Order: sequence, then structure tokens, then C-alpha cells
Amino acid sequence: MSDAETRLQAAKNRMGTFSKAAGKVMQGFQAVAKAATAEGHFDSGQRELIAVALSVAKGCDDCILYHVDAAKRHGASEEALIEVLEVAVEMGGGPAVMYASRALETWRTL
Amino acid sequence: MSDAETRLQAAKNRMGTFSKAAGKVMQGFQAVAKAATAEGHFDSGQRELIAVALSVAKGCDDCILYHVDAAKRHGASEEALIEVLEVAVEMGGGPAVMYASRALETWRTL
Amino acid sequence: MSDAETRLQAAKNRMGTFSKAAGKVMQGFQAVAKAATAEGHFDSGQRELIAVALSVAKGCDDCILYHVDAAKRHGASEEALIEVLEVAVEMGGGPAVMYASRALETWRTL
Amino acid sequence: MSDAETRLQAAKNRMGTFSKAAGKVMQGFQAVAKAATAEGHFDSGQRELIAVALSVAKGCDDCILYHVDAAKRHGASEEALIEVLEVAVEMGGGPAVMYASRALETWRTL
Amino acid sequence: MSDAETRLQAAKNRMGTFSKAAGKVMQGFQAVAKAATAEGHFDSGQRELIAVALSVAKGCDDCILYHVDAAKRHGASEEALIEVLEVAVEMGGGPAVMYASRALETWRTL
Amino acid sequence: MSDAETRLQAAKNRMGTFSKAAGKVMQGFQAVAKAATAEGHFDSGQRELIAVALSVAKGCDDCILYHVDAAKRHGASEEALIEVLEVAVEMGGGPAVMYASRALETWRTL
Repeated sequence: MSDAETRLQAAKNRMGTFSKAAGKVMQGFQAVAKAATAEGHFDSGQRELIAVALSVAKGCDDCILYHVDAAKRHGASEEALIEVLEVAVEMGGGPAVMYASRALETWRTL
Repeated sequence: MSDAETRLQAAKNRMGTFSKAAGKVMQGFQAVAKAATAEGHFDSGQRELIAVALSVAKGCDDCILYHVDAAKRHGASEEALIEVLEVAVEMGGGPAVMYASRALETWRTL
Repeated sequence: MSDAETRLQAAKNRMGTFSKAAGKVMQGFQAVAKAATAEGHFDSGQRELIAVALSVAKGCDDCILYHVDAAKRHGASEEALIEVLEVAVEMGGGPAVMYASRALETWRTL
Repeated sequence: MSDAETRLQAAKNRMGTFSKAAGKVMQGFQAVAKAATAEGHFDSGQRELIAVALSVAKGCDDCILYHVDAAKRHGASEEALIEVLEVAVEMGGGPAVMYASRALETWRTL
Repeated sequence: MSDAETRLQAAKNRMGTFSKAAGKVMQGFQAVAKAATAEGHFDSGQRELIAVALSVAKGCDDCILYHVDAAKRHGASEEALIEVLEVAVEMGGGPAVMYASRALETWRTL
Repeated sequence: MSDAETRLQAAKNRMGTFSKAAGKVMQGFQAVAKAATAEGHFDSGQRELIAVALSVAKGCDDCILYHVDAAKRHGASEEALIEVLEVAVEMGGGPAVMYASRALETWRTL
């Protein structure tokens, strides 16, 4: 496993443990996450990319890992990834550049 | 003019004044904004909607006004707006609900 | 109605409109919110106060209104409010002072 | 009084009320604020301008009012204000443009 | 020492170095921190848990380490920790899930 | 190379890769960055220090590395660094203490 895969797996394990401890809250959150990324005007891969842009804005490395992976598995393209990262840079300046650069690296590694 | 239109106009006037004072920085920023919302995989309306999601995440009312207006002028649909707001709620919880609600109200008012 | 009550009512109306538009996501979010403020080690009023502290950290005025009101209706005390605001100031500095001051004003007005 | 002066006065009144309620915490915070803006390598006006840049990054309107006013009273220049706002735009993108524009308007109004 | 203990010790060493360099500011900050976590309506362990929730909202790993450790040393329970993390998820969505999962892991490791 | 130098180099490499992928946006951003740190009332080292304060506020480790390094290369002094970090603590509380401590460590390591 690459370093990114190892960190993604660790994040998922942590989330699994927390989901057992906070069962009802996390059941609700899973319902939010499922509905928020369902196919509609945007397909699921595009909606996961929007989640990547929001992860970059927040500066959350675990979120970047998780949603880059999800976007990829839902068939998003690198071209589309880069476009959402560009909007993140418009709306976040220097810190967004740093986290967008991490998101692209993660995309190319996973 | 509706209240939202008045506030949008005031925000644009303020930005105009600041752009004169900070000319070179704002010239660079305009280049960022133009390239970040150019037609590509996503069309300009969709990219402005991603900017709306990021505005909601930040909790920036002037940004919500500005990018909801831009998305609308670029032909985005309310259905697509709601989908990006849903992703913002997934990634932002309660505060995102509050600002997403403002974004939808702004969309229907402008 | 005081100004705070008017603004709270407007926020609730906006949330109602958004909840109709984003039904499944908001159903999930309501489940999160209900479980996150259920009686446990902390009672519901205390958990709403923690939500107030997080609203202050985020700088979200609508959230402050909403959760100060909820805390009050669940029987929280002003003494307990002030204590969570103090932790918010420890963890947020000057901006937290500004929003904590708004939260206390809201508490005394509603 | 201009609208900005009225809002600044209201913010100061709210802080006064909160300072009575949270006495020890606010005594500590006042010590932080005093030491953080004391004359040193940077003079007090310049340090208040750095606080303005941080207020813009946070998107805190009350903070912008408070620190723009303090910078002005400590003799800072508009040229220096604009320079810190430019750094805020570099580090904050679109939302920083919006709040920087508010900061400049506040400077010229107060 | 576990990895968490090593990172906590490194964070405390860094804070010690910074406290020497920024003496007056940090003296004020220590007064804030002490007063904000003093026994009152909430006991010190509960107030540290509120600081954990705010650390999760900010996404600050060093803060999570520091305040999880402090909460534990002040006798807070895991049940109470999970409840504050649930409120953090309500108010922070996906990124809060990620950092709450780290906080729980830290609690069980330290 | 020290650990900080290795991480800085990795961040710069990532930015280089992203800059190729998002060419026009990053060209605009470079223009923003250049103009925002040009010599004026504040010299370039001082403006980079303000960027450090904003990096601390955001909690962005890569940004801290990048702008601490840039400030140092532009001749900023440790005394001036500490002063901007103090303002960051005033405006950011506990999390700012953590990231300011990292910034000072980075300064003394690079």
C-alpha cells in the first residue's frame, strides 16, 4: 500500500470506531452523506469533487483523502478535479493552493 | 430593488473601491476568478455554484450574494444549486444549514 | 417581537424552506441534531450550550440565535452559558469575544 | 454618528457587558490584547493593522470595526492598511476580498 | 511512550519555547486558560471537553491532544467525551467526523 | 536537510505540479502573491510575516513553512516574527498558540 492508502485506511478505521461509539449521530450523518452525493443534476463523482473542494477549503487532510478516493471510485476525471480545485483557490487563496496541491498529489497516488 | 439587490450592489461598489486601492493585487485576483470559472468540464454556471458552496462553508454573506447572482446569470438551475448546498451541509453541519438557507432565499429573491 | 425574536423567526422560516428543497439531506441532519442534543451525561440544555460555543467559534449569528434559544428552552442557566462562552474565548481569542458578547446579549433579550 | 460608529459603539457596549459577566477570563484577555499590540519592532498602529488582516481572514465584522478604529487612533496610515489587506487577499481569496473591501470602507467612514 | 504521548510532549515543549519568547502575551493567555477551565457549573473535566469540541471544530491536532489529555487528567468520562464530539459533528459535518474520530482514538491511546 | 527543509521542499514540489495542472489560475495567483508582498510601507520581509500570522490563524502547516522561509530570506527578524505571532494569539486563542509555537520552531530550524 502507498502512504496515501495507509493513511486512508487508518482514517476509515478511526471513523468505524467512532461510528460505534456515536451510533445514532453517525447513522444520521451517513444518511446526510448518502443523500448529498446521490446522482442528480451532478453525478456522484462530481458531487464528491465538490466535497473535495470543501475539504481543501477546510484544510482537512483526512477529508481530502476520503473524498478524492470516493470521487475516483465514482468515475470522476482529473480534469474535473482540477477545475473544482481552481474554484477552491479562487475562494481560499494561499492555504487553498497548499491543500489543492495535496489533493492533486493524492489523486495521482491513490 | 429588493433588499438582496441593494446589498449586492453595495458589495460590488465596495469591491470597486478596494480594487482601485489595491490595483495590482486585484488585477491578479480577477485573473484567478476568470480562469477559475471558465467553461471546461463544468460550465461557468456550475463553477459559480461550487463557489456558492464554498461561500456557504465560509459563512460569507457577501460571497453568497455575489456567486448566487453570478451562477444565475450563467444559467445555473435551482436543482443544481440545491445539490451543491446539500454537499455543503454534509461538509459543514449546522452552520452550513443556516448559510445554505440564506443562499436558497437569495436565489429565489434575486 | 424583539429584534432577536424577529431574526430567529426569519432564520427558522428560511430553514423550513430549505428543508423542503433538500428533504433527504435535512431529514438526516435532523436525526443528527436530535441525537446530538439528547439527554445523557450532559442534559439537553448543556448540549445546546456546547452548540452555542461552537456557533461562537464559527462566528455564525443565525446559529447563535438558534442554539441560545434552544438552550434557554431546555432550561440552561446563564451561569452555564457564560462558562461555555469563556471556553470559546480561550479557544478563539478576539473574534470569540465579539461573538460571545453577541450570544450573551441574545440570551438576555430572547 | 455614522452607521459604522453606531455599530462600533454597540460592539463595545456588548463587550463591556460580557466583560462584567466573564471577569477573570476577560482580565486575562485584556492582558493578551495589551501585550500583543504594544510598541516594539512594529508600532501599535501596525500591530492593530495585523489584527485587521486577521479580522478579515476570520470574516468578523465587529473585529474589523474594532481594529480598524484602533489602528486609526494609533496613527496607522491608509497606505499601510491597504498593504495588510492585500496580504489578507493573498491568503484568503474571494471572501477576503469581500471583508477587505468592508475594512477599507470602514476606514474611510470612521 | 505511545505516538500520541510523544506528539503531546513535543507540543508542550514547543509551547514552552514560545512562552519564553512571548512572555507577557502568554502570561495573559495562561490566565485566560486557567479561568476558562475553573470549576463552576461545569467541572474542569467538562470544560476541557468543551475545549476538545472546539479543537475538533478548528481541526487542530495539537489542541485535540492537549485538551483530551487535560480532560482525562481532570476525571472526565469517555461517555461525556463522546457526547461533546456528537455536538461537534452536528455543528461541523464531515470534517468534524474526521477530527472527532481522532479525538476518540487519542482518548483511548493516552 | 532538516525535517522542516524536507517538508518545505515537498510542499514546493507539490505546488509546482499543481501549477502545471492549473496554469492560468496559478499565473493569476502568482501575480497576487507578488504584488501582496512587494516593498511598500512594509518591506517584503514584514509582509511575509503578516502572511505567517494568517497561516497560523488558518492552521495551515505548509503555509507556515512556506511563509516563515520567505520571511527569513527577505531579512525579517525573529523579534518581528514573535510580534506578529502575538497578534495571531490575541486573535486566535489556543489553536493560534499551537500553530505559533510551530512557526517559531520552524523559524529556528530552517
